[in-house]
Amino acid sequence: MSKVKEITGRDIDFGKWYTDIIKKADLIDYSSMKGSMIIRPYGYAIWEEMVKILDAKFKETNHENIQMPMFIPESLLNIEKNHVAGFAPEVAWVTSGGNEQLNERICVRPTSEVLFCEHYKKIIKSYRDLPKLYNQWCTIVRWEKTTRPFLRSREILWQEGHTMHETEKEAKEETIRMLKIYEEFQKKYLAMPVITGRKTEKEKFAGANASYTIEAMMYDGVALQNGTSHYFGSDFAKAFGIEFLNRDNVLQAPYQTSWGVTTRMIGGLIMTHGDDSGLVLPPKIAPIKVIIIPIGKIEENDKIKNVIDKISEKLKKENITYKIDNSEKSPGFKFAEAEIKGYPVRIEVGMRDLENDEITIVRRDTLEKIKFSKDFEIDKLKQLFDNIQNDMYQKALKRRDSMIHIANNYEEFKDIASNKPGFIKTNWCGNVLCEDKIKDDTTFKSRCIIENEKVNGPCVVCGQEAKYKIYWGKQY
Amino acid sequence: MSKVKEITGRDIDFGKWYTDIIKKADLIDYSSMKGSMIIRPYGYAIWEEMVKILDAKFKETNHENIQMPMFIPESLLNIEKNHVAGFAPEVAWVTSGGNEQLNERICVRPTSEVLFCEHYKKIIKSYRDLPKLYNQWCTIVRWEKTTRPFLRSREILWQEGHTMHETEKEAKEETIRMLKIYEEFQKKYLAMPVITGRKTEKEKFAGANASYTIEAMMYDGVALQNGTSHYFGSDFAKAFGIEFLNRDNVLQAPYQTSWGVTTRMIGGLIMTHGDDSGLVLPPKIAPIKVIIIPIGKIEENDKIKNVIDKISEKLKKENITYKIDNSEKSPGFKFAEAEIKGYPVRIEVGMRDLENDEITIVRRDTLEKIKFSKDFEIDKLKQLFDNIQNDMYQKALKRRDSMIHIANNYEEFKDIASNKPGFIKTNWCGNVLCEDKIKDDTTFKSRCIIENEKVNGPCVVCGQEAKYKIYWGKQY
Repeated sequence: MSKVKEITGRDIDFGKWYTDIIKKADLIDYSSMKGSMIIRPYGYAIWEEMVKILDAKFKETNHENIQMPMFIPESLLNIEKNHVAGFAPEVAWVTSGGNEQLNERICVRPTSEVLFCEHYKKIIKSYRDLPKLYNQWCTIVRWEKTTRPFLRSREILWQEGHTMHETEKEAKEETIRMLKIYEEFQKKYLAMPVITGRKTEKEKFAGANASYTIEAMMYDGVALQNGTSHYFGSDFAKAFGIEFLNRDNVLQAPYQTSWGVTTRMIGGLIMTHGDDSGLVLPPKIAPIKVIIIPIGKIEENDKIKNVIDKISEKLKKENITYKIDNSEKSPGFKFAEAEIKGYPVRIEVGMRDLENDEITIVRRDTLEKIKFSKDFEIDKLKQLFDNIQNDMYQKALKRRDSMIHIANNYEEFKDIASNKPGFIKTNWCGNVLCEDKIKDDTTFKSRCIIENEKVNGPCVVCGQEAKYKIYWGKQY
Repeated sequence: MSKVKEITGRDIDFGKWYTDIIKKADLIDYSSMKGSMIIRPYGYAIWEEMVKILDAKFKETNHENIQMPMFIPESLLNIEKNHVAGFAPEVAWVTSGGNEQLNERICVRPTSEVLFCEHYKKIIKSYRDLPKLYNQWCTIVRWEKTTRPFLRSREILWQEGHTMHETEKEAKEETIRMLKIYEEFQKKYLAMPVITGRKTEKEKFAGANASYTIEAMMYDGVALQNGTSHYFGSDFAKAFGIEFLNRDNVLQAPYQTSWGVTTRMIGGLIMTHGDDSGLVLPPKIAPIKVIIIPIGKIEENDKIKNVIDKISEKLKKENITYKIDNSEKSPGFKFAEAEIKGYPVRIEVGMRDLENDEITIVRRDTLEKIKFSKDFEIDKLKQLFDNIQNDMYQKALKRRDSMIHIANNYEEFKDIASNKPGFIKTNWCGNVLCEDKIKDDTTFKSRCIIENEKVNGPCVVCGQEAKYKIYWGKQY
């Protein structure tokens, strides 16, 4: 047991630690709907912060929001053959509505490519109608057998971007543009070091030409695929008969992309930064950035009340979200609760400090105590947020990098895979047989191909000429 | 046909006019998923404006957002008997997932009372846990037989508030508080005059103790129920075994409310303000408040370009959303398009005006032309927005009031019902038999009981002593 009762030690049982955190920090609850979760107000507030930032970035890059039906008739899902082969085994089927048996069963969308394509067919007639840059915030359903809150559930709260372009070049640029937006968001706001690259043929999205991925490494060395961006070429367009009159007055098929991130990012945040005392949220994404805890009752002490009033006023003026814990619990209990919730900064206002005209600020990431003047230097706080944000990223980066191992041959690979948590970086020939062998022998899967990195040796499995640099790892 | 080709005249065929507007203004599209709609970017942008304003109001009144599962196991739906009786006939049932037949079928939520109650049972233990003030933005499903975009569809994009309280008084106050927030929003932002009141026993929500409603009257005199707020007492709480230790240390059931508004409000906007030229949006809810149309090409005329640059700069500085139509279409065509889209204000910048150092502003609601200086008086524009907003409300109010009729006896009632569009206000005894008779004879349904209005005569149907003042009307 760690400091806070009921939270399992992170190094003792990482899985149980994770479950304890999400329950104790009031992020989720379970319901009788197995495989789904209730996202409670504090968990949902983190998602709202993510949505706010990403939605603004999508709009800056000229994307428009849209809302598609949540249902897909079976015949519509069946149109693109690779796509349906990938998704049909994991969808939920509605077979009756309003006491009547349906003529055709309909599935709850597992993703919406086919719905967008049906719509594109009606609205794209000329190159003047392109590009179409759409995004949708919604819930999708994939009937997973084993589920885990935020990481793998039957219902997923996400965003899915869907775009159509005049040229292959433009569509490929869009695929990478959105990948970069995800990467920057996760690094800058979530303080998560991530690797981006291309998925292998085996691991790519059903129906895609190429899939790009954001791969994060959790504290325990296990990979979390934390966002994807797909290039479809014209495969869907051709299957759906979408054609436009191009600048040469010739009918042709447009080029397509799709890209998405989900509430899984919340799981990533927890497993990257959390510690034995609870959640640790980076200031840039924390819904509540400051918790103020009076040592003693506010009502009974004018001095404490005045200082807290002044602090609140300054925070409000700067639009820094905060909360005052004026409950009847003991200060120690309040500190522990604040730590579980992961508020980036705690401000303690007590008489002992005030005798020296001071207040105490506690960083959640390091639990370091810092004295501020009772006049509360707001700029010093803002600087502190920057430091915390940066330190959290650097700490996660250092740990991540220390768990990236290089294997030059298969004996080394197997040795690392069974002894050291983390990713393994190797050369690879590109053959799925070598990829399958690694999976069978070690349970490691390919994470992503690093494009543009020089290959400097033979394939780690077969010893033949290598084509790619690639990362391997276990995954959530 | 009206001025704009392809829009049916509003007074010729109101239903067809409505369908034309939503298609021509690019608000929605249809898909092969019958009974559902695609909300296109412009339609969705209107919804986003609504969400932004309402979400802020919910948060100001201390409500927290949450996300419940979209599925409800049949056994959970069955717990509250009146509720399930009302909803079971119109839900969609999922019977298989991931190729396997489910042991218990699950429905797609038609509303989420039972999910919230299951959660409340776990988290409400003491009066210190109350109130719980929750809201959820999501999609629900009701398997309607006949559907109409925005007004009645199988999938509904909405918000549902769900709260639990320590006392009956507090819960009743919450029910009315949220009703008032809806009322104020619709009057102030949507410029829609609305009537609020209590639903009759026959028309109340399945499982509610009392249902309050927002009743708007459309241009054609037909009622649109545009939001509801329900008081449940402790009926659900008792059915679910939710109990808390009250201040006297005694276990008791809490008191519950729920309340919701949907994208139906977009339908209400259209049918209140739209005209033969298209949509007319009140400035306070329009996603794009100003359309700027150059008369001539911007690129070929420095003078026009400079003026438009200056206007854009001023609009941007004031956070007034705008769009410039610099396409190759003719000015007349652009004007017609801008009118279909209902942008509140159009700015025309052309050489003839500029010779007099002027530009032309056109109000969408009246199509009145106003000269502005080419230096663009931004305060004058802001004043104009206020005038438009106010004038739109007053115009709708005047029309609405002119279509509220008073019937003192049943002959009068039937005469008005068959000859004059609008609502009929009467005294009513409160007996459902009289309510049913009106429905059978005239297709009119009760809209709402006006609480606190003095009854001044016998029941309009049976002539017995009346208990209530009430509105009747046809409904969408």
